[in-house]
Amino acid sequence: MTANELIYAGKAKKLFTTDTPDVLWVEYLDQATALNGLKKDTVIGKGQLNNQITSRVFDYLTAKGIKHHFIKQESATEQTIQRLSIIPLEVVVRNVVAGSFAKRFGLEEGAKLAQPIVEFYYKKDELDDPFINDAHVLFLDVATETEIAELKAQALEINQVLIELFNQLGIQLVDFKLEFGRNQAGEIVLGDEISPDTCRLWDKETGDHLDKDVYRREIGGIVSVYEEVLRRLEQLEGEK
Amino acid sequence: MTANELIYAGKAKKLFTTDTPDVLWVEYLDQATALNGLKKDTVIGKGQLNNQITSRVFDYLTAKGIKHHFIKQESATEQTIQRLSIIPLEVVVRNVVAGSFAKRFGLEEGAKLAQPIVEFYYKKDELDDPFINDAHVLFLDVATETEIAELKAQALEINQVLIELFNQLGIQLVDFKLEFGRNQAGEIVLGDEISPDTCRLWDKETGDHLDKDVYRREIGGIVSVYEEVLRRLEQLEGEK
Repeated sequence: MTANELIYAGKAKKLFTTDTPDVLWVEYLDQATALNGLKKDTVIGKGQLNNQITSRVFDYLTAKGIKHHFIKQESATEQTIQRLSIIPLEVVVRNVVAGSFAKRFGLEEGAKLAQPIVEFYYKKDELDDPFINDAHVLFLDVATETEIAELKAQALEINQVLIELFNQLGIQLVDFKLEFGRNQAGEIVLGDEISPDTCRLWDKETGDHLDKDVYRREIGGIVSVYEEVLRRLEQLEGEK
Repeated sequence: MTANELIYAGKAKKLFTTDTPDVLWVEYLDQATALNGLKKDTVIGKGQLNNQITSRVFDYLTAKGIKHHFIKQESATEQTIQRLSIIPLEVVVRNVVAGSFAKRFGLEEGAKLAQPIVEFYYKKDELDDPFINDAHVLFLDVATETEIAELKAQALEINQVLIELFNQLGIQLVDFKLEFGRNQAGEIVLGDEISPDTCRLWDKETGDHLDKDVYRREIGGIVSVYEEVLRRLEQLEGEK
């Protein structure tokens, strides 16, 4: 299988068709962006780190019975996925007070939440991906009431599996963003990537940020930190 | 009955105890504020207009079987209410695209919504009353899941009654903000005021703003506009 026609060029990924209609080819780019694209840099090595981390995380989800779009890693920077019709929502799950949640409620980062919290953001660059509620999702006509419940249930189930995975890596899963889509059968399936670009990951011993906050907040280098996450994932794989 | 001890001085109202423990005395002030209090002016006559409008609206709600805290108008600027333990949420109901909703979705004001939309905002001046979702309400521990459903149901029922009332006044009810509290029996009951300070009201013929937007947006005088709303309410009363 190889990449055919380019169908989408995003901030950190390119998507291509393949010879199989239902399968897409993804190339991860050496691009870091933040602040909805206002901050943007080339970071050599980031594409392959995200591709390798995401591939391993999705393999772990497969082993735990979670439905998703990932098929397999094809090269250092490439993977194949099932084609989905993406639902334009960022589904955020929070376990610990951080980021925009901390800001919204005037709280210090770091307190553990009694219950995980799910938030929806409308994926729309021109609007800066606004935070929305369930009634807004219905207004936007991007998911039905049943599908909203399904998105939340899947997000919370994936959260439990990811907490367990990162826990084995000595990492606290603070919060993360998921995207879902509908497959050919109309089922809602996890899409996108799961990487230090889309998760807040704090070292359980030191509290160090092992995620894109090192770039957003300019407190460290992306490559060394993402390498550390990959190293721990590879080590876990070796132990099995 | 008279006002005893001052227990709360807000931006547009003062609250006093009375000789009856469960009854409070409200004085409406000649104060207009916007932008979370950043914009503030004395407007002679506004207090009595809001008091008279709110009193008439609550009397209408009584006739329609809606539970609320209002007892009766005591003077031009004063009324008595049942004491509630206020739930710190602003419950916003929207029938037409306007205000922050228009801004959030990059839409022009004026389109009718297919379904009324309910939004919660956390009443907290220091945080600028942030928009929140149901999971945040649970996190804040200000209402249970059952109570959230009850708040939404009551807000939508009140919306239907208010649409009908304002329709008879030649006014389109665009959106409005409600506050609820718990009475001595622990029941959730409508509180606060319902006036051109808390509702967006558009003249059905001309589209003119008959609400606080004339002040927020500096497009007219508050007194003449609020007088017009009161005049129409009095006329409706006279017709009955």
